[in-house]
Amino acid sequence: MGSAGGHIDPEVFQKVRDLGRTIGQKGYVLITGACPGLPHEAAKGAKEAGGVVVGVSPALNMDEHVIKYLSPTRCYDAIIYTGSGLMGREIENIRSCDVVIFAGGRSGTLGEFAIAYDEAKVIGVLESTGGITQHLGSIIEMVNKDTGAIVFYDQDPERLLAKLEEVYRAVIPQRHLEALEEGGGPDGVIEP
Amino acid sequence: MGSAGGHIDPEVFQKVRDLGRTIGQKGYVLITGACPGLPHEAAKGAKEAGGVVVGVSPALNMDEHVIKYLSPTRCYDAIIYTGSGLMGREIENIRSCDVVIFAGGRSGTLGEFAIAYDEAKVIGVLESTGGITQHLGSIIEMVNKDTGAIVFYDQDPERLLAKLEEVYRAVIPQRHLEALEEGGGPDGVIEP
Amino acid sequence: MGSAGGHIDPEVFQKVRDLGRTIGQKGYVLITGACPGLPHEAAKGAKEAGGVVVGVSPALNMDEHVIKYLSPTRCYDAIIYTGSGLMGREIENIRSCDVVIFAGGRSGTLGEFAIAYDEAKVIGVLESTGGITQHLGSIIEMVNKDTGAIVFYDQDPERLLAKLEEVYRAVIPQRHLEALEEGGGPDGVIEP
Amino acid sequence: MGSAGGHIDPEVFQKVRDLGRTIGQKGYVLITGACPGLPHEAAKGAKEAGGVVVGVSPALNMDEHVIKYLSPTRCYDAIIYTGSGLMGREIENIRSCDVVIFAGGRSGTLGEFAIAYDEAKVIGVLESTGGITQHLGSIIEMVNKDTGAIVFYDQDPERLLAKLEEVYRAVIPQRHLEALEEGGGPDGVIEP
Repeated sequence: MGSAGGHIDPEVFQKVRDLGRTIGQKGYVLITGACPGLPHEAAKGAKEAGGVVVGVSPALNMDEHVIKYLSPTRCYDAIIYTGSGLMGREIENIRSCDVVIFAGGRSGTLGEFAIAYDEAKVIGVLESTGGITQHLGSIIEMVNKDTGAIVFYDQDPERLLAKLEEVYRAVIPQRHLEALEEGGGPDGVIEP
Repeated sequence: MGSAGGHIDPEVFQKVRDLGRTIGQKGYVLITGACPGLPHEAAKGAKEAGGVVVGVSPALNMDEHVIKYLSPTRCYDAIIYTGSGLMGREIENIRSCDVVIFAGGRSGTLGEFAIAYDEAKVIGVLESTGGITQHLGSIIEMVNKDTGAIVFYDQDPERLLAKLEEVYRAVIPQRHLEALEEGGGPDGVIEP
Repeated sequence: MGSAGGHIDPEVFQKVRDLGRTIGQKGYVLITGACPGLPHEAAKGAKEAGGVVVGVSPALNMDEHVIKYLSPTRCYDAIIYTGSGLMGREIENIRSCDVVIFAGGRSGTLGEFAIAYDEAKVIGVLESTGGITQHLGSIIEMVNKDTGAIVFYDQDPERLLAKLEEVYRAVIPQRHLEALEEGGGPDGVIEP
Repeated sequence: MGSAGGHIDPEVFQKVRDLGRTIGQKGYVLITGACPGLPHEAAKGAKEAGGVVVGVSPALNMDEHVIKYLSPTRCYDAIIYTGSGLMGREIENIRSCDVVIFAGGRSGTLGEFAIAYDEAKVIGVLESTGGITQHLGSIIEMVNKDTGAIVFYDQDPERLLAKLEEVYRAVIPQRHLEALEEGGGPDGVIEP
């Protein structure tokens, strides 16, 4: 999650591309909002490393995606057309991620952070990427509610990802295992 | 938009109920997230004044609304079951309002504010209702992006509504009139 | 649910307007897709009788509603902007209705019927309104699945509504009562 | 799109698995509703052939996916949690596909077909898979509306896919090329 516009420093672009590359190298699937700017830079990084990239588009179809939202199509294995608009699609995007990473950004990114925080996600903040991201610590204090979200900060993409990986292994698979045990197992159950 | 939980002062409840009553008296339609807490207090106020109240529910149906989300059904003329969850339904809720008013709240309300601000809404902040609402001024500075949103602050429900009404008359109907002129008119156009 | 386009007979328009008027007179809330054609005719009827009418729009906002979808704004107490497109909005529309009535229509109406049937709704078919509606009996046979949906047919709007009312009173409030008993009651429960 | 339940013949399972395998071999991305039954059989086939598989889930998160919907998690590179319920998620599923293939099925599949037909998709019908699929020809006659959808029928998975590929190359990339030319290009355009 991060800037789709505004002024962005070349080093920030580089940092986010490195982040994407590391995600791809480690065999994780990258999910972005399929927008230009930092998210697209991460998509390019992940693709360079042979990763799978899925985009969750605000548009109803490819025409709207390209013409109305001026959004990229390159680097995506699949684009899901939600039609829910810029903020609407973020909800699905965040829900569908095991771990959510923030860099740069303004009001859209703030909304995404509030959603991820409210939905108790494992959150990574890529520091020194400017924008609203540098205020997230104080915003969490203002919110003053323990939602269960876990937030990590680091300015180094690899180190940030290593931390998030560790928490993910410790926290999330347990919940997933419980879900699989309570439910129908990895192949589902056919209805009568 | 505002607190569905946490500690809420009785005066804040009263203030929000007065706000709802004024909305109903003036003949406006109140749209809420059909949740308990401050939004429900506004619904009760609007209904007392004979207003129309529509709820935009996170649930897929009435069962989920009542059992999973422990949400109210009283006071609503219609409840729209979005199934999009707590934050997902807020997008539609905000989109469907001409004017959005905030009181109290925590991370959910912050997400709603970010959405309303990003979607360039006419926004009212009911002051002295605590929670995240009292930090919205500093958060706007952190966001540092002119989205076209217009934000008013007042601690008096009637005065706040009067201000919002004035802006609404000045700004919104013009955009609506343009939409009606470009488009199909108030009765729509039948497709071939 | 029904034709937003194609050739529509004046008697069909009249029948659907009568249906809307009866719905309004009886104090029910009419929910439509806020589109032109038969649904708008029902909205006009309900409004003439002083009813509350809510529209569930395919558009992201009023501009799109009027310009892109050439859809009506007159007669609606509130329009919910789902942004989910023509078929996407129908899901919410159908979910939010206690009873769903069909008249005329083509492929869109067929999709709506399949949804309502799959979601086990109480369904009314206004006969002699042409289109796909006249084939719904054979389509149910082809589907060959008991979903729990209850379907009534009548060519007279008042008689159809009377039948649906009777089933509604017998079947639905029971489920709603159970939901209210299991859940938080008509005013909801505030989260901690 | 197809049966998630009811009785399904072993040959139909085999046919759909072959279809999935061919999709994976040809390097296409398979998008399913991440449900059990025929769609999961296609996912297994595509995965065996090394393909990328994306699921569009009715659930809000993995817990609901597994526990409430008894749905599979194996074979999916990414699962998008729409939270829109069984029919709601189908809209996004269909919108996000370049080509939509039907096999077997009952009322849910009928709804999906109506949506795909209404949205002018390139549609393949895998014949001799029973259910509602065998009635789609007569249903198109009943609908009696040219939406622009193109429908092919074949009982052999490879032959069906070969036909759909040919149409796809002839029809779709042209529209996509036009979209890319009108819009921002494959890397999108950064907003100011």
